[in-house]
Amino acid sequence: MSTLIRDLAAATPEMLDLFADAALLKSALRFEAELASAEAAEGLMTTRAAGLIAEACAVDFDIATLAREAAHAGTLAIPLVKYLRARVGERDSEAARMVHLGATSQDVADTALMLQAKSAAAILTRDLAQIAAALEELATRHASLAVLGRTLLQGAVPITFGLRAAQWLLAIDRAAARLARECEDALALQFGGAAGSLESLGPRGPAVAARLACLLGLAAPPAAWHARRDGIAGLGTALGIVTGSIAKIARDISLMAQTELGEAHEPLEAGRGGSSAMPHKRNQTGCQIAVSASLRAPGLVATLIATLPQEFERGLGGWQAEGPVLAELFTLAQGASAAMIPVLKGLDVDANAMARNLAAAGVQGATEQAATLARLILKSRKGS
Amino acid sequence: MSTLIRDLAAATPEMLDLFADAALLKSALRFEAELASAEAAEGLMTTRAAGLIAEACAVDFDIATLAREAAHAGTLAIPLVKYLRARVGERDSEAARMVHLGATSQDVADTALMLQAKSAAAILTRDLAQIAAALEELATRHASLAVLGRTLLQGAVPITFGLRAAQWLLAIDRAAARLARECEDALALQFGGAAGSLESLGPRGPAVAARLACLLGLAAPPAAWHARRDGIAGLGTALGIVTGSIAKIARDISLMAQTELGEAHEPLEAGRGGSSAMPHKRNQTGCQIAVSASLRAPGLVATLIATLPQEFERGLGGWQAEGPVLAELFTLAQGASAAMIPVLKGLDVDANAMARNLAAAGVQGATEQAATLARLILKSRKGS
Amino acid sequence: MSTLIRDLAAATPEMLDLFADAALLKSALRFEAELASAEAAEGLMTTRAAGLIAEACAVDFDIATLAREAAHAGTLAIPLVKYLRARVGERDSEAARMVHLGATSQDVADTALMLQAKSAAAILTRDLAQIAAALEELATRHASLAVLGRTLLQGAVPITFGLRAAQWLLAIDRAAARLARECEDALALQFGGAAGSLESLGPRGPAVAARLACLLGLAAPPAAWHARRDGIAGLGTALGIVTGSIAKIARDISLMAQTELGEAHEPLEAGRGGSSAMPHKRNQTGCQIAVSASLRAPGLVATLIATLPQEFERGLGGWQAEGPVLAELFTLAQGASAAMIPVLKGLDVDANAMARNLAAAGVQGATEQAATLARLILKSRKGS
Amino acid sequence: MSTLIRDLAAATPEMLDLFADAALLKSALRFEAELASAEAAEGLMTTRAAGLIAEACAVDFDIATLAREAAHAGTLAIPLVKYLRARVGERDSEAARMVHLGATSQDVADTALMLQAKSAAAILTRDLAQIAAALEELATRHASLAVLGRTLLQGAVPITFGLRAAQWLLAIDRAAARLARECEDALALQFGGAAGSLESLGPRGPAVAARLACLLGLAAPPAAWHARRDGIAGLGTALGIVTGSIAKIARDISLMAQTELGEAHEPLEAGRGGSSAMPHKRNQTGCQIAVSASLRAPGLVATLIATLPQEFERGLGGWQAEGPVLAELFTLAQGASAAMIPVLKGLDVDANAMARNLAAAGVQGATEQAATLARLILKSRKGS
Repeated sequence: MSTLIRDLAAATPEMLDLFADAALLKSALRFEAELASAEAAEGLMTTRAAGLIAEACAVDFDIATLAREAAHAGTLAIPLVKYLRARVGERDSEAARMVHLGATSQDVADTALMLQAKSAAAILTRDLAQIAAALEELATRHASLAVLGRTLLQGAVPITFGLRAAQWLLAIDRAAARLARECEDALALQFGGAAGSLESLGPRGPAVAARLACLLGLAAPPAAWHARRDGIAGLGTALGIVTGSIAKIARDISLMAQTELGEAHEPLEAGRGGSSAMPHKRNQTGCQIAVSASLRAPGLVATLIATLPQEFERGLGGWQAEGPVLAELFTLAQGASAAMIPVLKGLDVDANAMARNLAAAGVQGATEQAATLARLILKSRKGS
Repeated sequence: MSTLIRDLAAATPEMLDLFADAALLKSALRFEAELASAEAAEGLMTTRAAGLIAEACAVDFDIATLAREAAHAGTLAIPLVKYLRARVGERDSEAARMVHLGATSQDVADTALMLQAKSAAAILTRDLAQIAAALEELATRHASLAVLGRTLLQGAVPITFGLRAAQWLLAIDRAAARLARECEDALALQFGGAAGSLESLGPRGPAVAARLACLLGLAAPPAAWHARRDGIAGLGTALGIVTGSIAKIARDISLMAQTELGEAHEPLEAGRGGSSAMPHKRNQTGCQIAVSASLRAPGLVATLIATLPQEFERGLGGWQAEGPVLAELFTLAQGASAAMIPVLKGLDVDANAMARNLAAAGVQGATEQAATLARLILKSRKGS
Repeated sequence: MSTLIRDLAAATPEMLDLFADAALLKSALRFEAELASAEAAEGLMTTRAAGLIAEACAVDFDIATLAREAAHAGTLAIPLVKYLRARVGERDSEAARMVHLGATSQDVADTALMLQAKSAAAILTRDLAQIAAALEELATRHASLAVLGRTLLQGAVPITFGLRAAQWLLAIDRAAARLARECEDALALQFGGAAGSLESLGPRGPAVAARLACLLGLAAPPAAWHARRDGIAGLGTALGIVTGSIAKIARDISLMAQTELGEAHEPLEAGRGGSSAMPHKRNQTGCQIAVSASLRAPGLVATLIATLPQEFERGLGGWQAEGPVLAELFTLAQGASAAMIPVLKGLDVDANAMARNLAAAGVQGATEQAATLARLILKSRKGS
Repeated sequence: MSTLIRDLAAATPEMLDLFADAALLKSALRFEAELASAEAAEGLMTTRAAGLIAEACAVDFDIATLAREAAHAGTLAIPLVKYLRARVGERDSEAARMVHLGATSQDVADTALMLQAKSAAAILTRDLAQIAAALEELATRHASLAVLGRTLLQGAVPITFGLRAAQWLLAIDRAAARLARECEDALALQFGGAAGSLESLGPRGPAVAARLACLLGLAAPPAAWHARRDGIAGLGTALGIVTGSIAKIARDISLMAQTELGEAHEPLEAGRGGSSAMPHKRNQTGCQIAVSASLRAPGLVATLIATLPQEFERGLGGWQAEGPVLAELFTLAQGASAAMIPVLKGLDVDANAMARNLAAAGVQGATEQAATLARLILKSRKGS
């Protein structure tokens, strides 16, 4: 099974790799190996046992078999732990019993998802910085370039293109800041054992958890969050807001690129934006990707809000729904960002068309305040 | 890129194959081959040209390359048509110009999606029939089996388990009927050329369209539906309702299977429903899949309603958002169905537990009317 | 409490009245009165008792008190039945016990909602017919009027404005047909008593139900649908598709009305579409209402899909969520329709602007096929 | 028009008042009055003119008339400003021209919404504090009370009821913290004039804005956010997460209250939780309200994410969709909170039932770690 053609239309290979089976499995195995390491450090198993477990985690697995068995069992951890125990057991039957000690399936699933999310957030943050840099450049360069301000899709009064770009930038800054905040909250270790109290580890449970979080580079929450899913919901909505904020730029550019306006276009790139029926067209392909992503994100965000009321200590169906949805939100947000970086870096701004449209609209007005405001926004960013 | 582990947790291999790259590509090539055939029949190209095009469509493509080029171009049709023209051109340069004659990228994309949807609907319909058969059997067998009726999660008055199952059945019948209706509307050829009027084919356009629809086994709409997307929205909502109707059954069974109720359980199956931390548990894994699907479907349905207002003759971003969402809705609906077939066929009904809970609740009441109603529902189905 | 200012911005007084307290109460009382009548006809109470109940239902209630007591009790039926019993009891204590005989709170709530929905659907259907008539007129009049076809927001090839309008019309036809179909399914009596089997009425239950449905002008379902909510979900999605189909027209007109395109505008109406800051503007206020409605509808549709898996014989929280959401979907769909009727009837089409934009775009192409197709669409409608 | 019966089933009178017409109008008038005051302070009008405007804003308006005219005009500001100018003009025609100086309709609409949102957030925050206090009390009192931990709706291992309550509390703490953060971002003055640059006020624009924000008690953003809507989206999602976090508690309590579990119930309250058909029932009415709210919130959140890509300097349809949706999200979140305060304060915990269910489940396990963890969570809260 593979849906490369549909997926690549919206996503980058970088993000698809990050949420692919190999990366998921690697994260799950990292959890199991570091768990053993943390437990050895707390005296719950020997260092040798932890070492054997880590070695077993380093060997390749057959993903198709694992996936099939996980689907049958209802969770990945069951076949994964079975195979790890078998591998370790070939060398030391005592150590084999130490695999997955004190953990439950959801601990693996959620922690692996958070490790993937951490990597994805880093990539997206990098791309948002590039978008911000491109917007800063546009806003600076065109701070005084008069353009027809448009409200309710009607010509209103003149502003400057720099102000429009500075407003885009403010939105990206805020969306990136929200994403960072939500990551801080959400990217936390999941480790609670059977019903959240790590009962089987006795008094050492909290210390193992703290150590494990540290080894994995994740936050250490006050308790397992098996049925407390606001972190994922908050992260998902931050991604939805990132996507919408990028799509707002894309929407504006695609409107400015209309044949009759012609005020800005995506940079020409060989083989991109053509039409199979009309070679003369100049389709705004980057904008299309971003707008399309913004149509798909809201429903996905709704899912992550809908899954919040999960039953008791671990819900039935709720958390299982979240993983693919969060992965898709990351993929769409980063896909939209990646599509818009070259658009904004190479934006083809047509000052003549802007002047022509402004004159044709017959609206009067100075643009000094707009230019000043654009510069104020740029300056206030530096200060923050 | 592959996400087998996450996908298989919710979907069947059958459905994943159906929406995989190979199937998408096959559908797209089928469109191009049959288009040529229809155009030859209407005298717009020679039979030889159509034959050469069909032959070119029968040769394998490198999917990874196509996917990459399609992502760059913004649409699959551009590289696909390029390669087809090259292949045909090696044998006949005149015939090469006939490839994709009169069509546009969206014609290929939408028609290919509808061909996939038609196959998917057939599979889902088959599975819904199995669910209905299993429910009919349950309702018949347990028509008179008293069970505590429950409202607002509180014991209410006695009914029969057969009535509960008959109600589940009614909902499945209705959901399947709605799906069939919406398929009739939605599974239509897309063929309009550059802006929907097939202008480049001259007066023969409508005849080509009628013939092409017939060859592909799709309905022939009065006009291209490039920017008229209610068919997809209607189909998507029918899938959402199928999923929710199955999840209602799963919700009820998972509640009946609670430790304290114990009135019904999924059949025991080696290796399924276990817990990596608690071997004594009897997780309702089939129900979990269905409930999880029903949490993901509503947001996806919302996307297909949100994309309806597409711009002019072909929108920017809207229709590109629909394909993966419709595929996911099919996958979730069929995944939920497939998970519940064995659950319902092998449902482990505990009449003693039902009697015990009924007695413990201390509610009085006869169940004759419930039993009669269950039988009436079953009978009314036969008549319809 | 009243939110007239915000509500009237999106809704018509006609629809607000239809879903107002007085109408809800009237529907609930109609249920109670006709229930007594049906039960008298089946010999379950005397004709005199039914008459006294009907008289009690005809007297005014204090809505604020009822609303407060209903909120406290958790359902409207509890205070309503209490007051009805008291009223009837003043004249005949035996008849007082006959009030609400065999029914449960949800029977009143759902049936009242369906009675309101039936009225709302009639109004909306009337308005959709007006929209269709206006579109037919536009498509007929402008069948041959050349306009720039636009795809991905770029000028593509010439089509005719009549074809664009005919496509709008096709979408409205289909949306209206789906609405009619879903109404047929959904507008059904709810009557099942405590847990759906009408046990307390004995063998006469089904006959009472059939008679009651007839008296109320609602369909008689094979069984109560307390926990089988696909009718409401299907109706809600049909409304979402109506709204989106109208908003597609509004989106196109608002884009055609852009200062630089100027191809069509809403008719000028004194005091409408102005700006508090810019008197020169010609805001497309009708289009704004329709577009705004289409942004709100998808999330509401998702809610009605999400509520499908309701627990056992009557869920906790699910059906209580549906009433206001369905009412809002009707209100938005009809509000959008009502806003667009005058827009389409008086659409200010500027053929000169169309010709100018077509020439400026520099695209070539005949429009015969577009004109023919527009006429074919119009003709095919007559036949159907 | 009034929908008290349906509204009160989900909302409190306090919140309904806060978003009622009178409150909206008061907020809009407060904007106009303080705007004049700020502009007088910056020398843009005389103090006398500002005083006259403030006096005109203090006089009552006929809401029905205003609502009707606003609906016709497409925005409230148009009739409001017209009437204010007329009132002021009766005393001073020069001052009349100063009404609404430099502002646009959206400035009034958005700022009024933010003033209402600020009041609503204060009420909700107050209620969340009460919920947290009740949960702290429950978690403290029952820190060691053993209860069957349940995962996937199956009995798992013993934990303590105090741990369950402490987890509920953690979720509320986090939801309240997110709400506070988003309020800080979102509750900002909207003031940009025709196209966002306050051009008509000249260099004094920014100073007027800063002063006006201060007078209104709202944050002063770096620029108008006419088309930058992430604040509202972030606030809306925070409300969705509040609602879901409360509903998680309600879901758990409604499950614990099932006839067969009987571990906890809402406090008995005369006239609440009854059934019109079954007097013996003990419906969990507070939980029902919260669960119902959580089913409605996700779709509303999706709307606020969907509206992000608004066109140019002020969108068509997007921001008009947000006001009622944000108001509804506040209403549902606070309605759910208010419903759960008495439930949690008076929760009827049945330790015997918990012990009985634990014994019957036959699962073994100590609960020391669960009790310790509950206390650690409580302690960590005090520290923060």
